[in-house]
Amino acid sequence: MVDGRLVSTFYKLCRTPADLLTRSRLIEETTRAGSGVFNIVQAIGSDAIMALMIVSKALDQSDPSKGYFPRVSRFHEFVAKNDLALAVAQTDVKGDRMLRPSEQKDKDLYLRVVEANEKGVVVRGAKAHTTQAIVSDEVVVLPTRAMTEADRDYAIAFSVPANTRGLKLIARPLVEAESAMTPEEGLISSKNIEVESLTIFDDVFVPKERVFFLREWEAAGILANLFGLYHRFTALSYRQVIAETLLGAAKMMAEQNGTESASHVREKLAHLIMYREQSRMAIRLAALDAVKDELSGMVYPNSLWANIGKLQSNTQYMSSVQSLVDIAGGLVSTMPSPEDYARKDIGPLMKKYLAGNAKMSSEERMNLFRLIRELTGSMGGLLAPAMVHAEGSIAASLIALAREYDFGSSKALITKILVEGTGKGLKHKPRARP
Amino acid sequence: MVDGRLVSTFYKLCRTPADLLTRSRLIEETTRAGSGVFNIVQAIGSDAIMALMIVSKALDQSDPSKGYFPRVSRFHEFVAKNDLALAVAQTDVKGDRMLRPSEQKDKDLYLRVVEANEKGVVVRGAKAHTTQAIVSDEVVVLPTRAMTEADRDYAIAFSVPANTRGLKLIARPLVEAESAMTPEEGLISSKNIEVESLTIFDDVFVPKERVFFLREWEAAGILANLFGLYHRFTALSYRQVIAETLLGAAKMMAEQNGTESASHVREKLAHLIMYREQSRMAIRLAALDAVKDELSGMVYPNSLWANIGKLQSNTQYMSSVQSLVDIAGGLVSTMPSPEDYARKDIGPLMKKYLAGNAKMSSEERMNLFRLIRELTGSMGGLLAPAMVHAEGSIAASLIALAREYDFGSSKALITKILVEGTGKGLKHKPRARP
Amino acid sequence: MVDGRLVSTFYKLCRTPADLLTRSRLIEETTRAGSGVFNIVQAIGSDAIMALMIVSKALDQSDPSKGYFPRVSRFHEFVAKNDLALAVAQTDVKGDRMLRPSEQKDKDLYLRVVEANEKGVVVRGAKAHTTQAIVSDEVVVLPTRAMTEADRDYAIAFSVPANTRGLKLIARPLVEAESAMTPEEGLISSKNIEVESLTIFDDVFVPKERVFFLREWEAAGILANLFGLYHRFTALSYRQVIAETLLGAAKMMAEQNGTESASHVREKLAHLIMYREQSRMAIRLAALDAVKDELSGMVYPNSLWANIGKLQSNTQYMSSVQSLVDIAGGLVSTMPSPEDYARKDIGPLMKKYLAGNAKMSSEERMNLFRLIRELTGSMGGLLAPAMVHAEGSIAASLIALAREYDFGSSKALITKILVEGTGKGLKHKPRARP
Amino acid sequence: MVDGRLVSTFYKLCRTPADLLTRSRLIEETTRAGSGVFNIVQAIGSDAIMALMIVSKALDQSDPSKGYFPRVSRFHEFVAKNDLALAVAQTDVKGDRMLRPSEQKDKDLYLRVVEANEKGVVVRGAKAHTTQAIVSDEVVVLPTRAMTEADRDYAIAFSVPANTRGLKLIARPLVEAESAMTPEEGLISSKNIEVESLTIFDDVFVPKERVFFLREWEAAGILANLFGLYHRFTALSYRQVIAETLLGAAKMMAEQNGTESASHVREKLAHLIMYREQSRMAIRLAALDAVKDELSGMVYPNSLWANIGKLQSNTQYMSSVQSLVDIAGGLVSTMPSPEDYARKDIGPLMKKYLAGNAKMSSEERMNLFRLIRELTGSMGGLLAPAMVHAEGSIAASLIALAREYDFGSSKALITKILVEGTGKGLKHKPRARP
Repeated sequence: MVDGRLVSTFYKLCRTPADLLTRSRLIEETTRAGSGVFNIVQAIGSDAIMALMIVSKALDQSDPSKGYFPRVSRFHEFVAKNDLALAVAQTDVKGDRMLRPSEQKDKDLYLRVVEANEKGVVVRGAKAHTTQAIVSDEVVVLPTRAMTEADRDYAIAFSVPANTRGLKLIARPLVEAESAMTPEEGLISSKNIEVESLTIFDDVFVPKERVFFLREWEAAGILANLFGLYHRFTALSYRQVIAETLLGAAKMMAEQNGTESASHVREKLAHLIMYREQSRMAIRLAALDAVKDELSGMVYPNSLWANIGKLQSNTQYMSSVQSLVDIAGGLVSTMPSPEDYARKDIGPLMKKYLAGNAKMSSEERMNLFRLIRELTGSMGGLLAPAMVHAEGSIAASLIALAREYDFGSSKALITKILVEGTGKGLKHKPRARP
Repeated sequence: MVDGRLVSTFYKLCRTPADLLTRSRLIEETTRAGSGVFNIVQAIGSDAIMALMIVSKALDQSDPSKGYFPRVSRFHEFVAKNDLALAVAQTDVKGDRMLRPSEQKDKDLYLRVVEANEKGVVVRGAKAHTTQAIVSDEVVVLPTRAMTEADRDYAIAFSVPANTRGLKLIARPLVEAESAMTPEEGLISSKNIEVESLTIFDDVFVPKERVFFLREWEAAGILANLFGLYHRFTALSYRQVIAETLLGAAKMMAEQNGTESASHVREKLAHLIMYREQSRMAIRLAALDAVKDELSGMVYPNSLWANIGKLQSNTQYMSSVQSLVDIAGGLVSTMPSPEDYARKDIGPLMKKYLAGNAKMSSEERMNLFRLIRELTGSMGGLLAPAMVHAEGSIAASLIALAREYDFGSSKALITKILVEGTGKGLKHKPRARP
Repeated sequence: MVDGRLVSTFYKLCRTPADLLTRSRLIEETTRAGSGVFNIVQAIGSDAIMALMIVSKALDQSDPSKGYFPRVSRFHEFVAKNDLALAVAQTDVKGDRMLRPSEQKDKDLYLRVVEANEKGVVVRGAKAHTTQAIVSDEVVVLPTRAMTEADRDYAIAFSVPANTRGLKLIARPLVEAESAMTPEEGLISSKNIEVESLTIFDDVFVPKERVFFLREWEAAGILANLFGLYHRFTALSYRQVIAETLLGAAKMMAEQNGTESASHVREKLAHLIMYREQSRMAIRLAALDAVKDELSGMVYPNSLWANIGKLQSNTQYMSSVQSLVDIAGGLVSTMPSPEDYARKDIGPLMKKYLAGNAKMSSEERMNLFRLIRELTGSMGGLLAPAMVHAEGSIAASLIALAREYDFGSSKALITKILVEGTGKGLKHKPRARP
Repeated sequence: MVDGRLVSTFYKLCRTPADLLTRSRLIEETTRAGSGVFNIVQAIGSDAIMALMIVSKALDQSDPSKGYFPRVSRFHEFVAKNDLALAVAQTDVKGDRMLRPSEQKDKDLYLRVVEANEKGVVVRGAKAHTTQAIVSDEVVVLPTRAMTEADRDYAIAFSVPANTRGLKLIARPLVEAESAMTPEEGLISSKNIEVESLTIFDDVFVPKERVFFLREWEAAGILANLFGLYHRFTALSYRQVIAETLLGAAKMMAEQNGTESASHVREKLAHLIMYREQSRMAIRLAALDAVKDELSGMVYPNSLWANIGKLQSNTQYMSSVQSLVDIAGGLVSTMPSPEDYARKDIGPLMKKYLAGNAKMSSEERMNLFRLIRELTGSMGGLLAPAMVHAEGSIAASLIALAREYDFGSSKALITKILVEGTGKGLKHKPRARP
């Protein structure tokens, strides 16, 4: 309910752990409806709005004249009432990755404010990997990282309609759909697919009403991380359904090959079960241990559980695919086409020689192989980079996990052992928060 | 509270998820008090009692004349009131592992009833790895596995005082404590240690009042698994503290070596964090999703989460030790003795050359190395087999996980993809529970 | 040289380790010429011929009337002189994998002799995954496994021209090539590709002159394994070039992203180096420790090294792809198309925002991303199953490795330790070959 | 042969690949004679001498007045003729690892020259982890790393007798031997063990004749690496025997438990086979592809193969121990003592209940469990850090591997693919050696 009207659950602001769980369940079911393809266009937008609300509330608190929060609230109301589709553009193209935004040779390699006046701002730059912008109503822009004062022109957040002058969406080619010569060869992607774009802001004007965050360099990292946290929670919710496709395909393939009870097949199924369920564990606990932002009354997911879940999802995707491929066998890549099966001279021979068992017809079994081909082939070129990289790199997540972790109880335990074991005191007492 | 008297929380029967969480927290804190060594003597006993209560209630339900439940209840009351220490002997010595109990050449290689009359039964056999029986008041015996009718004499559960005639406890040598020539070389084990025994029943008489389960071959597997489930939950609760010792030692060592911010050190710390926190995730969810046994009113931990947690704890222990050893460096094995440090001619040189940084004195730093030596050395010979094997083998757990898992939603998802993708129906609809 | 004429090195029979190394080098260079796509058509044929020569020589030795070896020799001369392209069909479609060939409900699920007389034999059945049969001159058929006497009709090896009546080659759809809408999106596969077929023998007549092995059920396993051994050696030789594409792409990508010196990138590059070099180690040693077959004067690769090399290549492919994907980043899947780059309004913006560094132009850098997309996407659906499965499953290889290994020295060492350590003799002396 | 007298093969200078293989075989057999414990005292000394010869020859070449090579040669002759035992002290205690030697607060944390005159030099500092110095005749000192000019006083190599005034060897406590209360509990370590020391040079005078390298800061890294290379080759030769103890123990344990044919046991045996054989592969190729130093006529091992072998040995040790522990089971840690077995009342019960199968007596089987306890327990505290760390850290080796590797052919292959695939030239041609 926004302003007395029923709105999409995606746009319900999360105020309790239960809200986060409902949100997760919604993402899960819509991803299942999309056959494992996540329909991102409202989920990512609400991730952004919730992060913006918390940060803008805090900024306005210290300086009410900024007026960020009312603008974010009006934007929320606008998109909720109209049930709009939103894309979020965050990752800059970055240029030389060892240099900060303001140190780049070409100053535009991170998106920045090139002009600002009473009416609004003009921005220039490009964001990579913007999902579904080409079918969205609005494109929300967020800063990609923490900034220094020198980078202040890069610390900006706003939203513009997708058809704004100067905004150019260069979509990736739809390899998955194009490569499916028959429906059977694109069981998922001929019906469901997401498209990413390179999103170029070629001097785009943003009216003040849609500027949510301007030159707030000190808060850029906070905003980036908070959005990242909401979005990792969202990601776990759809990633577990992708894991479910691997698991279901592996299980049905093992049944077809009659190898279900082989010890090494069971081990691989157990691996796939764990791959899926670890995401579900992280979702549950990230919601249950959600943190309350007192100012806004909103909750955000617990970062320890979200990060652990995300890291497991990133690092174990490829080995999970290997488990599936190992169970399925070589027909994944060598299965003849449905068109040959349709021929009178060949079809019956294929039926005879590629027969499944009592649980499936030859045709269904062939399609199961084709589905695995799709997951590891045409869609694999999308899924592998996405599952390894999307929502932040593995290296960055490992650093964050080690840096944010509270080593207090573990250091206290070692200290106790050293003290009790020797009967002597320690030089320095470790504190709960080092 | 039992019979109006305050009793140990260990002997409180779990009736809600909160009870399980309290129980876990108690195990965690007592293990921390034991410097990572689990004080098992009441925890494992209550694991056994709770499993026996549920199973005996069900058996009495179908045939009240059996009278198992009242006996289990009186036993519970007895141990709770007197706050007794209990050992549980479950794993038989097994002989040829490819043969069932009744098929063994020597019929005693699984514990069995050799005589039964109105007064009680006489049992013979041996159980391996019974922890702390030598300091317990009672030894509870449970069947180790599912049985066939031919194995009925092996399907028995009971309890006897540890000093019963014919009961022989052959303890393992206490290598950890013996090898510590100074307190510093046995920081943990010179103060805290558990002792396992080979527990031999050389024709031991068990009075009827203490026979909880007799020739109930059909229920032997259920009892074995239910105890296993409670005990895996217990195990996760102490295992996370062992993980905490690895983590704390690694973190303090990294601080001492000044390598905290090295990328590969952070990665290893993150690995150790995940090793600990995955157990905590499993504990939380196994309690929250506990299953209610309607007949007894008791709850038992959720087996999916308990099994996943246990598998992670088993399979990743050695790589976690590797992370710790990698961070610490070679002084783990080459550190000179505290006795040399105490000498006037050598001590100052050791102090100079093995100096730590501002956070620790040389002496504390040396002891930190010695602690890691203890964890990987003298205690390693106990910990490595225990962390890999205790509470059931990895291979058995993988089989159980794949067999018990509900593949329903994953198969339904694949079915939906095949149907929608081709526009055709499937030959056989997978059901939620295959 | 065959019969005084210069012939392809592929058809030179290997009589020394140096011959094997030359053969490996030839495969390596032709695979490099094919941009990582192995031109199998003579290599696999000569693998088959060499295995057939050794086995037929041994069979004729015990019964010269069989006359297998002269036929194999004449076939060798024929293909060598005419420099023919050969496909080898070995893997049967198999039906229920828990049943032997003669136990299948449909007796044709393994290829078999349905008629035999003085002129030749008639065969029926189907072989899966036959590579490049559609562009070969001859199709050589080998048994897929060890047989029992009941399976004798399935123990057959022969060759027929690819256009023989009743032989039906059902090719897989060429997804890789079809999905490349521009040359840049199919940098490898628009020029180089292999095609597998389901190869159906619908009552095909084979003249006696081309029957190399008939109802020799006792030798079927030997022939299958010996071919497998030659072919695993061949496979290692082309697999290391596939590994080289991953390595080269990762290295150039790291240079482009400016992350070459990041610790985690170096670690992944080291992983990719090892992935390639382990194959090269196995090749070298499998050739150097080749085994001489005294009867035929030919050598075959050492099976220990070939198996270890193959297992590493199988099991670490997916993690190697993960290393590449991790280094490359998300543009692998979101890179816009070359057609957009060619547009005057968009091209300059793409050039600006996707600029590489001094070592590469924007365009080259984009194509490098596209190449990784191809390797993980369209070709990934071929490569992943092939690298995990081709030349035999991981599970089968692990069993073979543990079964064939000579544990002699390791058991002798343990025996020595037990004897010396206790000062007592052992009950049973382990022998060198258990 | 040195100077007409037969000398130990350890002191034979390697001039051909065959020499290296002979040397490896000698190390292997002496390690086997030591039950897996490497008798280092001549091997490491000759590693140092060979590295010093090559480097001193080169230094004298540019300035003959230095006279290093003749001194090294005389030292070689001296130790060879007298068949001396040598320790090598290389790793400094290092203090703050982020600072170079001359930047440390305490200048003595790397060993350095504090005085130098015509007669010789005086040195001060401490080296960690010096193996077997306490039973050696001479202690050879080498620099631990590359140096800058500011570090010149730290760039020194020399040898002194082990009983030199001011040289203090602080040995580690012999935990392994001390903890074995009976021979059966220290099957290896009660007979064979190495002792490391902290080796302190408390202003030790070194006569000029034994100074092999003085303030040669530019060559310090070369000398450190060259010694490291010889020593890694040595290490692979003994490490494969340690791997052999794991493998042999696992195989015999699987036979005793009757689990040899279980699929997961075979997989673990295969893992252990690969762990051993990968070291052997690296040894063979590092010798075969040895590099000739033209000036001295000596060969040194190929660094690519030596580094790959070392990394595999480092990184897979703990998982190999896990495989062994997994196969063996819990009796590794809970086996009662031999003293209980010797008792008349208990011995027969232990014999009955811990019976092995036909291949071993109960007693032998018990000792096999004890051996695994020793390997993972008392010796584990030595082996785990040694196998992970000795001869250089994993992190340093990964960096070295990625830095030294010749990416030439892999980059050329990618370049070819990009050029051929697009039909266009590249901006920059990668060269064979980037």
